[in-house]
Amino acid sequence: MSLIVQKFGGSSVADAGRVRNVARIITETYRKGHSVVAVLSAQGDTTDELIEKAREINPQASRREMDMLLSTGEQVSIALCAMAIERMGCQAVSLAGWQAGVVTDSNHSAARIKPIRTERIRKELDKKKIVLVAGFQGISRYGDVTTLGRGGSDTSAVALAAALHADLCQIYTDVDGIYTADPRKVRGARKLEEITFSEMMELASLGAQVLHNRSVEMAKRYGVCLEVLSSFSGQPGTNVKEVVKTVEKTHVSGVAKDENVARLALVGLADRPGIAFKVFSLLAKHEVNVDLIIQSIGRAESKDISFTVALGDARKAKELMEEHREEIGFQFVELNEDIAKVSVVGAGMAHNSGVACKVFEALYSAGVNINMISTSEIKVSVLVDQREADRAVQAIHDRFFA
Amino acid sequence: MSLIVQKFGGSSVADAGRVRNVARIITETYRKGHSVVAVLSAQGDTTDELIEKAREINPQASRREMDMLLSTGEQVSIALCAMAIERMGCQAVSLAGWQAGVVTDSNHSAARIKPIRTERIRKELDKKKIVLVAGFQGISRYGDVTTLGRGGSDTSAVALAAALHADLCQIYTDVDGIYTADPRKVRGARKLEEITFSEMMELASLGAQVLHNRSVEMAKRYGVCLEVLSSFSGQPGTNVKEVVKTVEKTHVSGVAKDENVARLALVGLADRPGIAFKVFSLLAKHEVNVDLIIQSIGRAESKDISFTVALGDARKAKELMEEHREEIGFQFVELNEDIAKVSVVGAGMAHNSGVACKVFEALYSAGVNINMISTSEIKVSVLVDQREADRAVQAIHDRFFA
Repeated sequence: MSLIVQKFGGSSVADAGRVRNVARIITETYRKGHSVVAVLSAQGDTTDELIEKAREINPQASRREMDMLLSTGEQVSIALCAMAIERMGCQAVSLAGWQAGVVTDSNHSAARIKPIRTERIRKELDKKKIVLVAGFQGISRYGDVTTLGRGGSDTSAVALAAALHADLCQIYTDVDGIYTADPRKVRGARKLEEITFSEMMELASLGAQVLHNRSVEMAKRYGVCLEVLSSFSGQPGTNVKEVVKTVEKTHVSGVAKDENVARLALVGLADRPGIAFKVFSLLAKHEVNVDLIIQSIGRAESKDISFTVALGDARKAKELMEEHREEIGFQFVELNEDIAKVSVVGAGMAHNSGVACKVFEALYSAGVNINMISTSEIKVSVLVDQREADRAVQAIHDRFFA
Repeated sequence: MSLIVQKFGGSSVADAGRVRNVARIITETYRKGHSVVAVLSAQGDTTDELIEKAREINPQASRREMDMLLSTGEQVSIALCAMAIERMGCQAVSLAGWQAGVVTDSNHSAARIKPIRTERIRKELDKKKIVLVAGFQGISRYGDVTTLGRGGSDTSAVALAAALHADLCQIYTDVDGIYTADPRKVRGARKLEEITFSEMMELASLGAQVLHNRSVEMAKRYGVCLEVLSSFSGQPGTNVKEVVKTVEKTHVSGVAKDENVARLALVGLADRPGIAFKVFSLLAKHEVNVDLIIQSIGRAESKDISFTVALGDARKAKELMEEHREEIGFQFVELNEDIAKVSVVGAGMAHNSGVACKVFEALYSAGVNINMISTSEIKVSVLVDQREADRAVQAIHDRFFA
């Protein structure tokens, strides 16, 4: 008998029919002899509707009260799902974050989970009950309700799986696994049986938003076996683990596109030490995360620095640069928002130097111009014009998977 | 400086504008130098909507899960109201039942409050915060969310006022006080400045559903001063207390009508001892509450018993009687659902035997036929045909208040 943690996202519990579907998946697992802890998100658009209600009353509402408000969404989901399970003849108990022992720090709206106090969940599992836990939420040591921020329910599920030493943590979503590329856009994209945590994180950060990085990081740290699968298809999904059997022929596990990116270029910098430090410490101080950085080789006493930031931070970053133009010392700053980052990810490429080369070759053949390049142990990213991005993804995918 | 508990019902917080209105009342009280604990119900039809969601999934949902579901409604209200108060420049903190220390027994959906653990509320009041407590809900000693059943938020407010030794408990509703009769229906109905707990309870049980009896009982037991007033008018309301200054000229405080009543008559009973016991113990065993009872004087070896029950119990009571017809020994049972109970209530009437007489006189003049009569220390009730009930109320009201 195994202990399985199952997580269902908002679209999986959006209405009564879907709640029943989730209850069916849970009870089927339970009836195979497993103990089940299910983590649920708020139904469909509930969270957005609650945020809208709050905005109408106070656009600057305190984060403590926002957490108090938003946490009701997941509580509704778990109660309804418990009712659906009862109707199917099994015993269930729903637990809000504070009841499930999900203790967090008191950083409201972006709280971090501290070790979970599992006594209550254990007790209910010992009574042969199916335990439903509200995702996305916890309780601070002051007794206040907290929420975990983006991807919170995935994090709740993985943290519970770690604390309970679960045999498996299944993340049910509206896709049926991790693909070598977005199957809606790329011909020949295929589902992976397995992928490593590191590859998964690179893919997630590159726009393949199946699983939030925070939860994958946590799964890696605590050795939680993840499976990503669909709550609609009933098919096996993709397993995410530390080491995968390399039965796959290729060294590359996927190709992803990220359009949530903008490029800034500081042109005409004086070629003297400390400039890069000035630029990036300024951005860090204002909480702008920088992704790729390229510095041109200094020539004729001036050089350029280009870097990418999330699209939402682009204007702020540009203003910051302009405010400190004299202090940093450059001629002008250029902002390009019509770009995309295309990346290939694969744990295998660390030992295969040909991957970057194949990427460039594929793009050259497809006539796609490369703007910036960045490589890491398991990733090659290139910045291209947004209108060429889909073509770039297809070309790279064809090169590795056709 | 006083400590004031204010309770706002569902219609008082139904939308953003009304939540702001409630926040304004609370902050005005706070700015006069008082400490304020406000108890809120769920917004408008929220509770009904949640019940409907549950029904769609499982019409026989467990009461534990129903409580888990329904308790989210009040939590939304207090969070939104806290945000509105923050926007008005005061500090507020919202507390769900479990955070406010509202410990109850574990009788889900109809839980009883045990002494409230006020530490958290006291701590927040000491920090000069306005405290918003979710009404209708508590926590059992097993750590489960409970709800208090009908009139639950009133009960929460009174229990908190008692536990905190509040100077006043204000119940804000959509009427601006207690009237001598329903002002929408009775000409000349006027607002009372004061009323006793006992009169209030009689009025409530007679269909003047401003305050739930359970909360009035609790206020009486713990000596909590109540004020019933409107969240819309801004006018002083009616004070409910143990003893009132009898500046009022009349001995009667109000006239009420209750249409939630049905009459059953057992016709042709054998005139022997123990019959009444058989009938009413049978009804009690099946949780049918009996209100008025009349037994005709035995003649020619047979008699009749008539009694009233709540409309919702009428069919069940009739079936019960028919099932046990031979055992009880009667000829047939008659059910009349087209009746109403009209009552005059007044602490003063205990010392004034003329009240019942005036009631009969008023009804005789108006040509209203009396079906059954019941009197107590502070109440005279008559059963009349439903279509004559409004006329009966007006006639009695005219007789005492014109």
